[in-house]
Amino acid sequence: MATHKLLLLPGDGIGPEVMGEVKRLIDWLNSAGIAKFETDTGLVGGSAYDAHKVSISEGDMAKALAADAIIFGAVGGPKWDAVPYEVRPEAGLLRLRKDLALFANLRPAVCYPALADASSLKREAVEGLDIVIVRELTGGVYFGEPKTITDLGNGQKRAVDTQVYDTYEIERIGRVAFELARKRKNKVTSMEKRNVMKSGVLWNEVMTAVHKREYPDVTLEHQLADSGGMMLVKAPKQFDVIVTDNLFGDMLSDIAAMLTGSLGMLPSASLGEVDVKSKKRKALYEPVHGSAPDIAGKGLANPIAMISSFGMALRYSFDMGALADKVDAAIAAVLASGLRTADIKSEGTTAASTTQMGEAILKEL
Amino acid sequence: MATHKLLLLPGDGIGPEVMGEVKRLIDWLNSAGIAKFETDTGLVGGSAYDAHKVSISEGDMAKALAADAIIFGAVGGPKWDAVPYEVRPEAGLLRLRKDLALFANLRPAVCYPALADASSLKREAVEGLDIVIVRELTGGVYFGEPKTITDLGNGQKRAVDTQVYDTYEIERIGRVAFELARKRKNKVTSMEKRNVMKSGVLWNEVMTAVHKREYPDVTLEHQLADSGGMMLVKAPKQFDVIVTDNLFGDMLSDIAAMLTGSLGMLPSASLGEVDVKSKKRKALYEPVHGSAPDIAGKGLANPIAMISSFGMALRYSFDMGALADKVDAAIAAVLASGLRTADIKSEGTTAASTTQMGEAILKEL
Ligand SMILES: CC(C)[C@H](C(=O)O)[C@@H](O)C(=O)O
Ligand SMILES: CC(C)[C@H](C(=O)O)[C@@H](O)C(=O)O
Repeated sequence: MATHKLLLLPGDGIGPEVMGEVKRLIDWLNSAGIAKFETDTGLVGGSAYDAHKVSISEGDMAKALAADAIIFGAVGGPKWDAVPYEVRPEAGLLRLRKDLALFANLRPAVCYPALADASSLKREAVEGLDIVIVRELTGGVYFGEPKTITDLGNGQKRAVDTQVYDTYEIERIGRVAFELARKRKNKVTSMEKRNVMKSGVLWNEVMTAVHKREYPDVTLEHQLADSGGMMLVKAPKQFDVIVTDNLFGDMLSDIAAMLTGSLGMLPSASLGEVDVKSKKRKALYEPVHGSAPDIAGKGLANPIAMISSFGMALRYSFDMGALADKVDAAIAAVLASGLRTADIKSEGTTAASTTQMGEAILKEL
Repeated sequence: MATHKLLLLPGDGIGPEVMGEVKRLIDWLNSAGIAKFETDTGLVGGSAYDAHKVSISEGDMAKALAADAIIFGAVGGPKWDAVPYEVRPEAGLLRLRKDLALFANLRPAVCYPALADASSLKREAVEGLDIVIVRELTGGVYFGEPKTITDLGNGQKRAVDTQVYDTYEIERIGRVAFELARKRKNKVTSMEKRNVMKSGVLWNEVMTAVHKREYPDVTLEHQLADSGGMMLVKAPKQFDVIVTDNLFGDMLSDIAAMLTGSLGMLPSASLGEVDVKSKKRKALYEPVHGSAPDIAGKGLANPIAMISSFGMALRYSFDMGALADKVDAAIAAVLASGLRTADIKSEGTTAASTTQMGEAILKEL
C-alpha cells in the first residue's frame, strides 16, 4: 500500500476544531489498515503570524511543496485586522495557491435534502441542487501587477489592482470545466463581463475556441457575470458547471454556497496541473466556510465541510473514489439520523457538538 | 413655472415600449399644467449603431450634456453581439456615465408586498425589504487604464483591465451614502475585498475616515464583498444603505434586485456632483432591468421600473418630491388592484399589456 503524505494546516478560528475531526478519521483509516497516511502539521494565517510574524513560514511552505495533498482549515479573524498587509492571514493562503500553482478551484454547491429548509430560498428552488463552480484561482485581479497604493500628495492616494489573463490560463481552466461536465450533466456556463472588461472579451473568445476545438460534445453557454449572479439566485438548478475568473468566482461561489442552506457542509478542492512524469498534481482541500472566530473554541463548529473536503482529497488526489463515496454516505446517514450541529439545527433534530458529529460519522464508516 | 429639459433615450429591445409610457405621463403632466417638461429624443446603443455606426452620436451627446435630466431605457441585444468592441451598445451608456461624471448610482431594492411571492426567497426573508445600493459608477475596473488585449505571439494573448480608485472618488461616493442613510435607517455597510485588493484597502480606509470626520452619527459597518453577497442572500433585511465600487456594485445590485422578485419594477438614478453655482446636478434615470430582446415589441414589458425611474427624476432632479410620492402611490394602487404584466402575473390577478399598465397608473394619478 502506497504511503501518502498529508500536510494539515488547521489555521485560525474554528480551523483547529474541524481539523481535529479529520485527524480522527485519518488515524482510524491508518489503524484499520484501509490507507496509509503520513501526516505533518503546520501553521498558517493568524496562528503563523502569532508564532513567526509571517502568514506562513518558509519551513511550512517547504512541507507544503513536498506533500501529496494539503488539508486546510480556515484563516483570519478580527484579532489580526491591524497586522501589515503583507502578512495578513489571507496572504498565507494566497501564497499557497500561487506557489503551488493551484489554478483550478472546484466548489460544489449541493443542497442536502435534509437541509433544504435551512436555505433562505424556497424549497422548490434549491431542493436537489447540484452544481459546481470552477473558479480560476491563480490569476486575475488577485495577483496581477501593479498592485499598489501611491501617495499623490494633497491628502490624495491612488490604489491600483490589475486584472490580467493570458490565453493559456483561460484554456486550462476551461479544460477542467469541460472534463468535469462530461462526468456530469455535460453543460458548462462561462461567466464574465465582456461588455465592460477586456479580460471578459478574451475569456469569452478562448472558452469558445477550446469548446469548438476540444469539447464540441459538451454544451457551452455564455452569461454576463451580473445576470449570471441573478440567475443563480432565481433558478440555480438550470446550471451544471459554471466556469469563471478568480474574482467573479469568489463572489458567485459564495452566493451559490449560501443558496444551498448548507454552507457549513460544503467542501472545495484547489488543484494544480497533472505532472507529466509523476502523474501527480499538487492539491489543497478546504471547506468553503471561513474561520468563524465568533464560535471558535466552543465545540459548535460543523466539521462536515472539513471532512467532506478530505473526501475530495481521497477522490482527486489518491484515486480512492470508493472510499470517498463511503465518507459521503456516512455524512448523509448521520444527517438522516437527525444529528445536527448548531448551524443546521431545526425542530425535531438532535444537537451535536463538533466532536459528537465527527465521531458519529466515523462510527457510520 | 420653470421649464425642465429632458432627453429621452429609449435605446433597444423593450426600451422604446416602456419609454412610451413615460412619454404618456409627461404629456399629461404638461397638458394638466402640473409641470413644464420640454422633451427631446435621441438614439443610444444598438439603435444608434444601426443609424450611425456608433453607440451614441456626438449630436445626442451634446443634447445629453445640455439636458436637465436624461431618461434612459435599456441597451443591447444579440443583434449587436458581433459589432466592434468600441461601438457595442453598452459603450453608449458607459460614455454617458463617464462624460457626464455620473459617479453616484442609487439602486433601491424594494420588495413590493403584492409581489413578495414572486421572489425565489421565502416570503419572510424579503417581505418589507427596503435597501439601497449606492454604487460608484465612473471609476474602478470599468474605466481604468490600461485596458487592452495584446498579442504575445505563439497563439497567446494577454488581456488587462485596471482597477483604479483615488481618495476623492471614494470620499464623494461615501458622502452620498451617508447623506442618504441619514434620511433612512441611518446605517451604511461598506463592501470591498481589502483582504486581496489594494483598492479595497484604500476604500476601507477612506470610508472610515469620512465617517469619523463628517458622519459620526451614522452607523458604519464594513463587510468583505463576498460575504456581503452571502448576507444579502441569507438575510437582506439587515441592511439599509450598502456602498460599494463599480464592479461589486454591478453584481450586488443585480442580486439585490432579483431577491425582491420585483426586477421589472426597480428604478435607478445616476447622479453627478451638485454644481456650486447653478445648484443643479447632471442625472440619468434608468430601470434596473435590461433590454429583454426576447419579449421586445410584444407589449409584454413591464413599464413600472421605467415610470418609477421617472419618479426618481422628479424627486432628485426637479425637487418635486410630493409629485414623486403620488407616482409611487399610483403604482402601488394599480398593483393592489390586481393588474399585472406578464413578468409578475400570478393566480387571481388581471393580465395587462405595457400600455394598459401605463394607462392604469396615469388614471390613478
Ligand atoms: C480568504 C480569501 C483570500 C479567499 C478569497 O478571496 O479567495 C476566500 O474568500 C475564498 O473564497 O477562498
Ligand atoms: C450594460 C452594462 C454596461 C451595465 C454595467 O455593467 O454597468 C449594466 O449591467 C448595469 O448594471 O447598469
